[in-house]
Amino acid sequence: MPKTGLHNPLKNVQRYVMYGEVCRKASELMFQEDVAAHFTKLIQRLVPKHTVQAFGEVKLVRAFLANFSGDNVRFLAQAIAYPGDHDGQNPTGYRWPLGAVAVVSPFNFPLEIPSMQMMGALFMGNKVIVKPNSKTTVIMEEFIRMLHYCGMPLSDCDLIHCAGDTYEKLYSMCPIRMTQFTGSTDIAEKLAVLTHGRVRLEDAGFDWKIMGPDTPSMNIDYLAWQSDQDAYSLSGQKCSAQSFMMVHKNLAKTDFYEKLKVQAAKRNIADLSIGPVLSVKNAEFEKHKEFCMGLEGAKILHGGKPLTGHKIPSCYGAWEPSAYLIPLKYFQDTKLFPQLIQEVFGPVQIVTEYDDSELDIVLDLLERIPLHLTAAVVSNDAVFRHNVLAHTVNGTTYAGYRARTTGAPQNHWFGPAGDIRAAGIGTPESIKLVWSVHREIVYDDQPEPKEWTLPKPT
Amino acid sequence: MPKTGLHNPLKNVQRYVMYGEVCRKASELMFQEDVAAHFTKLIQRLVPKHTVQAFGEVKLVRAFLANFSGDNVRFLAQAIAYPGDHDGQNPTGYRWPLGAVAVVSPFNFPLEIPSMQMMGALFMGNKVIVKPNSKTTVIMEEFIRMLHYCGMPLSDCDLIHCAGDTYEKLYSMCPIRMTQFTGSTDIAEKLAVLTHGRVRLEDAGFDWKIMGPDTPSMNIDYLAWQSDQDAYSLSGQKCSAQSFMMVHKNLAKTDFYEKLKVQAAKRNIADLSIGPVLSVKNAEFEKHKEFCMGLEGAKILHGGKPLTGHKIPSCYGAWEPSAYLIPLKYFQDTKLFPQLIQEVFGPVQIVTEYDDSELDIVLDLLERIPLHLTAAVVSNDAVFRHNVLAHTVNGTTYAGYRARTTGAPQNHWFGPAGDIRAAGIGTPESIKLVWSVHREIVYDDQPEPKEWTLPKPT
Amino acid sequence: MPKTGLHNPLKNVQRYVMYGEVCRKASELMFQEDVAAHFTKLIQRLVPKHTVQAFGEVKLVRAFLANFSGDNVRFLAQAIAYPGDHDGQNPTGYRWPLGAVAVVSPFNFPLEIPSMQMMGALFMGNKVIVKPNSKTTVIMEEFIRMLHYCGMPLSDCDLIHCAGDTYEKLYSMCPIRMTQFTGSTDIAEKLAVLTHGRVRLEDAGFDWKIMGPDTPSMNIDYLAWQSDQDAYSLSGQKCSAQSFMMVHKNLAKTDFYEKLKVQAAKRNIADLSIGPVLSVKNAEFEKHKEFCMGLEGAKILHGGKPLTGHKIPSCYGAWEPSAYLIPLKYFQDTKLFPQLIQEVFGPVQIVTEYDDSELDIVLDLLERIPLHLTAAVVSNDAVFRHNVLAHTVNGTTYAGYRARTTGAPQNHWFGPAGDIRAAGIGTPESIKLVWSVHREIVYDDQPEPKEWTLPKPT
Amino acid sequence: MPKTGLHNPLKNVQRYVMYGEVCRKASELMFQEDVAAHFTKLIQRLVPKHTVQAFGEVKLVRAFLANFSGDNVRFLAQAIAYPGDHDGQNPTGYRWPLGAVAVVSPFNFPLEIPSMQMMGALFMGNKVIVKPNSKTTVIMEEFIRMLHYCGMPLSDCDLIHCAGDTYEKLYSMCPIRMTQFTGSTDIAEKLAVLTHGRVRLEDAGFDWKIMGPDTPSMNIDYLAWQSDQDAYSLSGQKCSAQSFMMVHKNLAKTDFYEKLKVQAAKRNIADLSIGPVLSVKNAEFEKHKEFCMGLEGAKILHGGKPLTGHKIPSCYGAWEPSAYLIPLKYFQDTKLFPQLIQEVFGPVQIVTEYDDSELDIVLDLLERIPLHLTAAVVSNDAVFRHNVLAHTVNGTTYAGYRARTTGAPQNHWFGPAGDIRAAGIGTPESIKLVWSVHREIVYDDQPEPKEWTLPKPT
Repeated sequence: MPKTGLHNPLKNVQRYVMYGEVCRKASELMFQEDVAAHFTKLIQRLVPKHTVQAFGEVKLVRAFLANFSGDNVRFLAQAIAYPGDHDGQNPTGYRWPLGAVAVVSPFNFPLEIPSMQMMGALFMGNKVIVKPNSKTTVIMEEFIRMLHYCGMPLSDCDLIHCAGDTYEKLYSMCPIRMTQFTGSTDIAEKLAVLTHGRVRLEDAGFDWKIMGPDTPSMNIDYLAWQSDQDAYSLSGQKCSAQSFMMVHKNLAKTDFYEKLKVQAAKRNIADLSIGPVLSVKNAEFEKHKEFCMGLEGAKILHGGKPLTGHKIPSCYGAWEPSAYLIPLKYFQDTKLFPQLIQEVFGPVQIVTEYDDSELDIVLDLLERIPLHLTAAVVSNDAVFRHNVLAHTVNGTTYAGYRARTTGAPQNHWFGPAGDIRAAGIGTPESIKLVWSVHREIVYDDQPEPKEWTLPKPT
Repeated sequence: MPKTGLHNPLKNVQRYVMYGEVCRKASELMFQEDVAAHFTKLIQRLVPKHTVQAFGEVKLVRAFLANFSGDNVRFLAQAIAYPGDHDGQNPTGYRWPLGAVAVVSPFNFPLEIPSMQMMGALFMGNKVIVKPNSKTTVIMEEFIRMLHYCGMPLSDCDLIHCAGDTYEKLYSMCPIRMTQFTGSTDIAEKLAVLTHGRVRLEDAGFDWKIMGPDTPSMNIDYLAWQSDQDAYSLSGQKCSAQSFMMVHKNLAKTDFYEKLKVQAAKRNIADLSIGPVLSVKNAEFEKHKEFCMGLEGAKILHGGKPLTGHKIPSCYGAWEPSAYLIPLKYFQDTKLFPQLIQEVFGPVQIVTEYDDSELDIVLDLLERIPLHLTAAVVSNDAVFRHNVLAHTVNGTTYAGYRARTTGAPQNHWFGPAGDIRAAGIGTPESIKLVWSVHREIVYDDQPEPKEWTLPKPT
Repeated sequence: MPKTGLHNPLKNVQRYVMYGEVCRKASELMFQEDVAAHFTKLIQRLVPKHTVQAFGEVKLVRAFLANFSGDNVRFLAQAIAYPGDHDGQNPTGYRWPLGAVAVVSPFNFPLEIPSMQMMGALFMGNKVIVKPNSKTTVIMEEFIRMLHYCGMPLSDCDLIHCAGDTYEKLYSMCPIRMTQFTGSTDIAEKLAVLTHGRVRLEDAGFDWKIMGPDTPSMNIDYLAWQSDQDAYSLSGQKCSAQSFMMVHKNLAKTDFYEKLKVQAAKRNIADLSIGPVLSVKNAEFEKHKEFCMGLEGAKILHGGKPLTGHKIPSCYGAWEPSAYLIPLKYFQDTKLFPQLIQEVFGPVQIVTEYDDSELDIVLDLLERIPLHLTAAVVSNDAVFRHNVLAHTVNGTTYAGYRARTTGAPQNHWFGPAGDIRAAGIGTPESIKLVWSVHREIVYDDQPEPKEWTLPKPT
Repeated sequence: MPKTGLHNPLKNVQRYVMYGEVCRKASELMFQEDVAAHFTKLIQRLVPKHTVQAFGEVKLVRAFLANFSGDNVRFLAQAIAYPGDHDGQNPTGYRWPLGAVAVVSPFNFPLEIPSMQMMGALFMGNKVIVKPNSKTTVIMEEFIRMLHYCGMPLSDCDLIHCAGDTYEKLYSMCPIRMTQFTGSTDIAEKLAVLTHGRVRLEDAGFDWKIMGPDTPSMNIDYLAWQSDQDAYSLSGQKCSAQSFMMVHKNLAKTDFYEKLKVQAAKRNIADLSIGPVLSVKNAEFEKHKEFCMGLEGAKILHGGKPLTGHKIPSCYGAWEPSAYLIPLKYFQDTKLFPQLIQEVFGPVQIVTEYDDSELDIVLDLLERIPLHLTAAVVSNDAVFRHNVLAHTVNGTTYAGYRARTTGAPQNHWFGPAGDIRAAGIGTPESIKLVWSVHREIVYDDQPEPKEWTLPKPT
């Protein structure tokens, strides 16, 4: 596999158009009810999520494919050029592929994440190796077979069914020039060292939401519904899940907590609005709860107990949607802090309260959280909202009345910030950044000026 | 130093304008003859280069500063926004700073490289630590003092005078969120591991030029002049220096080599058109020559001897501008190859010859060179030129009659390609890429629709 | 109809997504064989063109629709924003619709031209009135019905079946804020005055091709084939048809003219590769030929006679593919010039010859042609090609070995230049320019600074 | 003057850099105190404005010149390119000049407007004729002389000192390919017809400000100060002056009107914070007042009288800063409406009041104002502000706490919207739009594919 890729702006450019056609056909297929249902069920068979959530992946992927139909793949390869220093000189900046690259992706969005990253890699001209989480490889197998049917050449993409350490071995043997990784921070850092930084990372989030001073004037039902969805959808196993909510005391005085509790209580195993947690066992949930409740003044807003009445094997977690209220002062304690902001990849959120005089404490706290994936600032108060946004760096931050932490659609950037290695997913901008690099070709094709005479060397 | 930087698109935005004003004033100063002469001489005192070359750095930096006068710094912070899914939703992509960052730069362009990278870092809102090569720190000290005079706040930038290993220690103590490094590949890789990939690298080049089949129709004087400049300016101590020239046999039959030899012979120590080599001693030049000459059929086109009649201390190299012609077949030998493409950071180039039937051998050879900084394709033959450009990845590639390998101006991208960690320098595009990351804020400030009713959780 | 349109970046933004979905569905339909065949035949029933040419319109329109599937309509509404002068100030440039607008289009591309312009108008938020050439209205009726089926609201677009003067009356009665016109220059200028310049125009072309000095080294078959297609496809009734060919004497010495003649002779009425001319009768062709042949030294390269063996009514033209060679000197005669460059909207081209010493005469001639639609520079000679391109302004200019004058695909800009009123068609760039205007909203939502005190008025 | 201009992206490209250097030098000069003072006084000698306002023009122009220093002029000529259909095909979109163009500008900003438009025209490669208002030509003469000193070629720009009808004659004689006009709507429309729409217009404004329901929570001093400045600076003779203010009844209940009156009363002839009105005499002011006061319920908030104690000749107006409160109902009367929204180009504004239930009446009223230059929405209420912005089209609209109607800086777009002929001024975006057009060159330089065989014609 040459480092000039399968195509680039000067090589095999008909492949850009070919991928536009593959996208168009694949999108058309995925808009067919039976195909959509097949992928939805396949996802549900491997990852226990509500039908709406599983179908959500399908909807997103087919919308993404529609976005790159027609000429839109080649539009990703837009070059820019400027006049040079003399006639004939024309510096031109291209987006160039990297050659052989890899996508390593997690279990929780087994279709959405690997398919969008893989397509991005292919669009820009790379040959790509895809390594989904090994529990979910079959979903990508189906997806890739569909693409073959739609005209994708058989050799453009290799699917690997293996565990993470096998990937490390593979990496040492193959000339993989870039690895895009989505998953835990630990593995992300390990990969960064292994590859000498040839990575684009979307790692874990300890995603927060701040309810502003003006929230009581909003529809509390709406706020409670959105918070419940953000915290507990897919049993909290989204990298964008709301792990931490800071509630202005104005709102705490309303029936917001009560409404949140009522909404969370509607979740049930039958429709998978709550369900098994794949990477955290009940003992860990229990331990985390005990740590929280050991802090004086802390209390359980709802949940805090194992789920009952189910057949979920004990190798998986099964925990009620839970919210633990912890006084703000503990977040100022630098020893407690790392534990308090430890992501629990399940249906658990930490809640704290603040008032106007404590906003600086809150901002300082946010400064110290080392993960920067999503965030939400629920406020239309111009001064408050601006203040929070100006002093934070989360990559995808929702702000306003309808702010949320989850929602990673195909039409806007999704990914962490605050890190030069950060990956984005799905949008034209993110595909160009993650899957290609700048190459400058300075065309300079006119002869030397007539008055030119041989100068002395310098 | 917060990770939101000294300024960002929502914080202290008046600082963008302030930096436009600092640039305007500093540019104005550097257009004054005495200030320009001061920097030119300062550079020459520390790095032995021709006045034209030293003044070249000054000219470039002041042009760069002029480029970011007025509102141009804030124009770097352009955000893009799209309509969302419902009225009031407005996803907006910003360029966000990283916080505290560092610039580590080499001796050969002691003003140009650190000043442009440092300014880029500051423009985007970062606080920056600058570590020039320790032999040349004083140049940046003078530059920074000038910026202070022009209104740059004293605490925006820290200059460090230390060796490389001290930087490593510093790095472990400071929360440096990104290190931009220009220099050797060895150190670049070391830094990449140390920082877990939080780097943007401009590393070494083994820069090549290919003289196309149509070159005999061009002005041979011009070609010889450009090749001499590319190979031997600054005694070959440019990262963009021509290290390897592939000459079409059509051209080899002309008086090209002879003209090259004559031009190289004009170089002299008096005006520093040739001079001391700071990192390669004569013994190494000698050893390299012997390796080359040990290959049957190889020959010296010119040079290949120590300089004479000078007082350069023996801790530095002092070598004639040298070109060694080596038959193409040796580059196909995978054992010899790594030695053949070993960059010698001095006035030495390797030459080989090819004909039409050997172009694929040449392209294969280029595919195997692991460094991708600059390149030149001297040809106006549409088919030939396209072929070479389509199958190579060098970051800054000049193509056409007047193609060259050196020349890293402020008006077009300069940097390596083929690597996701690659840095660019000086242009708006490169500054945005190297010194900022994407942050998406999704404004969503209108209430839920009137018809909204509380849904079930999913 | 309000001047804020049916939607804009702040109003009814869900309609951008709705149009993405309409495009996706309509594209899917037009990729179905029966639907494609239906439109192809419908076009052929009204405009006598070869099946390949009629199907070409269908292919182009469905590719265009694919291009704006998914989120691509809203991506057209990209806004850009910059930091203001103080925190909270945020100037943002939007693309805003015009309100009620109109598309007036010609007979020769009865599906392609009105459908792409109409969709562009709708994408940007306008309500649009479409007035196709009255002979071909039914094609757009079918197209609009299909869009209704795909979800386009019934009231977004009005189709008018009327003659041009009726449109003028309509214009005086309706608040049409912009008229996009494609057609003859006379009517374009009339509309410009009527509307006080509220137009975007794609008017007539006297499109030229120049065969460079290096053309003899190319495949003469290929050159002849391309020239025949450019000049005689759709019986020369393309606004982009090659009306004027300047042949370097190097090429004139080859068998190029002979091959052109042979290829033109293959055209026949049976497959409509030649056919009726809708707006030029044989008497006019005859008169034009006589004018040309009246110039001493002129000669017929091929054609110059009425078609025979057909049933084309005499109200239409029926003329052989014809090329008249006219000596260059006549183009320098300012009295003859306007007649020589009079577009004949049928299968007729003017040919002249030049040599190296006459290039300036050729460039001066091109400067004097007042129409600037398409052009072709068939040459890979870097100096020659650059020279011609630098001194001409045609809006869509093809340059190189495979240069042509026809070809107006959906993936690159097509339209005239040299005129501030010029329209483009089909690409994102052209849609934004033709169908929307810049609106700047400067958000400025933070309070005055704390240190602010009431100043005196100025 | 050829239609390819003095330079274009393929011709004389060194001139882009030359203009960057002219800008840099001219900016440097205008930052010198004596030069700045010279222009300030020159402006004041011809247009009676406060020193702060006259110096404001100088500050803006020198900042504008700084913005285009260095490489920024050539950056305006950015081209974009995309992969074509086969290797070697490369469609490239350029910004092309128009050739000879003209700038026609008004008296009120005698330096700012013509200088920025003229420079924009030159940057893009046009030759430009500048016709300032004949009372103020000398200012541009001085400016152009300064540019000559800075290196601008003498023949790039022609200054014409004449009246408007002379320009019309000139236009018929010269091949002026585009006229940029700033001034009254009447003349704009006349020019549009004369030139067949080859214009870019910045015509009159009837600029409005709406004080939102939340304004009482803001600093009333600040609101009054800003409104006074917007309405009465330069004695109301700004095209962006606040002519119409809609005050929410919440604000009307505060001391806002009283504070406005007090601030207006501070204006005096001595410092030219109020002064002669050049195009409206007192009789007209009187007549307008009488019309307003003839409406039952109307009242004078302040002013409404001639200035006293001055020597202003009676050929000029001299009128107190005046605000007339008129009940909202009159704006619904379609007969009265045109008179009510008649711009009085002097220190006079119309005020009306509304409450929440009357917002639709207000929006309907705004829809009916045919001029769309500037506007202000003083509100941070998310729903209110969004509503007003979504239903209006003014080209430069300020929104938020610190919204204003005046302020046309060099860093953001300024100009009307709602019209395809609309001009912008000063920013890179506006210069590209007003002073250049799209030209597409499709490079296509590789031979036909090897498998190509001669097809039949279609």
